[in-house]
Amino acid sequence: MKIFEAAKVPIQWEERNVTAIQGPGGRWMIPPDCKESMDRTLIGLKGPLKTPIAAGHPSMNLLLRKTFDLYANVRPCVSIEGYKTPYTDVDLVTIRENTEGEYSGIEHIIVDGVVQSIKLITEDASRRIAEYAFEYARNNQRNSVTAVHKANIMRMSDGLFLRKCREVAEHFKDIKFTEMYLDTVCLNMVQDPTQFDVLVMPNLYGDILSDLCAGLIGGLGVTPSGNIGANGVAIFESVHGTAPDIAGLDMANPTALLLSAVMMLRHMGMHDYGKKIETACFDTIRDKKVLTGDLGGKSKCSEFTEEICRRVRDMD
Amino acid sequence: MKIFEAAKVPIQWEERNVTAIQGPGGRWMIPPDCKESMDRTLIGLKGPLKTPIAAGHPSMNLLLRKTFDLYANVRPCVSIEGYKTPYTDVDLVTIRENTEGEYSGIEHIIVDGVVQSIKLITEDASRRIAEYAFEYARNNQRNSVTAVHKANIMRMSDGLFLRKCREVAEHFKDIKFTEMYLDTVCLNMVQDPTQFDVLVMPNLYGDILSDLCAGLIGGLGVTPSGNIGANGVAIFESVHGTAPDIAGLDMANPTALLLSAVMMLRHMGMHDYGKKIETACFDTIRDKKVLTGDLGGKSKCSEFTEEICRRVRDMD
Ligand SMILES: CC(C)[C@H](C(=O)O)[C@@H](O)C(=O)O
Ligand SMILES: CC(C)[C@H](C(=O)O)[C@@H](O)C(=O)O
Repeated sequence: MKIFEAAKVPIQWEERNVTAIQGPGGRWMIPPDCKESMDRTLIGLKGPLKTPIAAGHPSMNLLLRKTFDLYANVRPCVSIEGYKTPYTDVDLVTIRENTEGEYSGIEHIIVDGVVQSIKLITEDASRRIAEYAFEYARNNQRNSVTAVHKANIMRMSDGLFLRKCREVAEHFKDIKFTEMYLDTVCLNMVQDPTQFDVLVMPNLYGDILSDLCAGLIGGLGVTPSGNIGANGVAIFESVHGTAPDIAGLDMANPTALLLSAVMMLRHMGMHDYGKKIETACFDTIRDKKVLTGDLGGKSKCSEFTEEICRRVRDMD
Repeated sequence: MKIFEAAKVPIQWEERNVTAIQGPGGRWMIPPDCKESMDRTLIGLKGPLKTPIAAGHPSMNLLLRKTFDLYANVRPCVSIEGYKTPYTDVDLVTIRENTEGEYSGIEHIIVDGVVQSIKLITEDASRRIAEYAFEYARNNQRNSVTAVHKANIMRMSDGLFLRKCREVAEHFKDIKFTEMYLDTVCLNMVQDPTQFDVLVMPNLYGDILSDLCAGLIGGLGVTPSGNIGANGVAIFESVHGTAPDIAGLDMANPTALLLSAVMMLRHMGMHDYGKKIETACFDTIRDKKVLTGDLGGKSKCSEFTEEICRRVRDMD
């Protein structure tokens, strides 16, 4: 919020607590005032969440995805200059189907000691995420989309997903389309991530690959994430944990949340504000003088923030 | 075979074609003379296979796993000195449940456009692979076993797998046991693979992680693999493709198959022969003078092989 203020971003914040409550009949739901705010503004910026351990309490992340039908999880992974990892020039985006697949939540005990989980793939959700991926590629000047699958094993489910990707690809002749097995992608990814551009995949594969790719550029502390829903709704978030051990110590690294906020600004069409803040953030990291501990520095969260604010103000 | 001869390994080879044939009722099966040889010797060394594209032809790899109940896929990933990748000192082993999970082959069309694949997890197979992993750790002087899962999402199936791992861990107090989410493992793996030792996991996760880890040390061209079955049967194999484009050109890199053969020797208790051949192979790679193209050299497969033979002979 301080950095947005420094950049004079013309938005008003509404703060809402998203912790699920039990509604009529014991059903878990997002609190009404939070739901109402999201329904009206269509945009959310979400900090890291810890799901309460109360019995039956649902995963907050899953509940949010469901409540707002956030069908596309988008994670750009771009190498950050000055923040050294074994990889350079990574510049890819994972696009994960966020509503079905292995996350259907349908499981059964068949007989004692035999359990099944159901992976559910639908034509509609597959087409929708494939369309999102190609649109994303086109709107973001990207050249190729790779569908990631295991249709050699899950012939029907991943087969359906893949078929929809192929069909959608037909309508995007300007974007190169390739298909690759998930295992092959993982292997090639750690050998040379620069060969990848936009990747689209079912839910679980996206869960895995998005974390793998985050690891390539420095981890969840610097990786932004966006969850895009139907009807224009979207929630942006840092996907790292809450680090309760350093709560209140002014030590946290706000980069992932800040870069998610930048994604949010771009989603809202505020490209100039987004660029300004992003530049100030990357310059601060490249400069190495004012960094939080996890980024290799000795500064407090507030000092890192202030440094970014200063740079933002200097751009005027 | 040439290298085994140079090392005077006291084994006799039986060559068998493993390409599936259709038996009575159209059922695909391993040819009887191959099955008979395996049943008698209990040990196989398998070259890379290409599944024929004939309609209905099963994956050869899956058929072999099924025929011989090869329930554990074991892949040691160890950094090879002289073969540069972004990682050093990798020394881990992935142990993959090889018979069920996402590879159950059970899929249905529920209604038009809605497909389900069933992930099947059983108590028996989970206990069996967990026991294998801990025995492996103990027998190979390894300190820890990590169970890799998504029991936060697939609570019943991965939950059952995890429970069995925990139970088995109770009987191996000398081995440290940890549990980790698959996504977290992927992220940590690309950031610092040296933190891992033995990893055990359901089928699909193993498919992914074993390829990812192979990528860390140089790819499938240098990664050995073993498939362990009940009753002492085992098949060792290189898991790379057949590279039909260079067939017959004396260009292939035999390292993955050779290191798999070394694993086989150890499995048979022939540790000294295994060590000798492994050393000759690693020395040849470290020396960099006689390497195949994919290893960065200009030598033919036969020259690389001859160099290893020479070193093996010199050890006598
Ligand atoms: C917290 C967990 C439910 C979630 C998931 O598995 O999707 C997380 O790993 C993620 O990627 O957002
Ligand atoms: C070829 C294919 C069926 C196989 C698998 O998915 O298990 C391969 O990727 C492997 O890891 O052996």
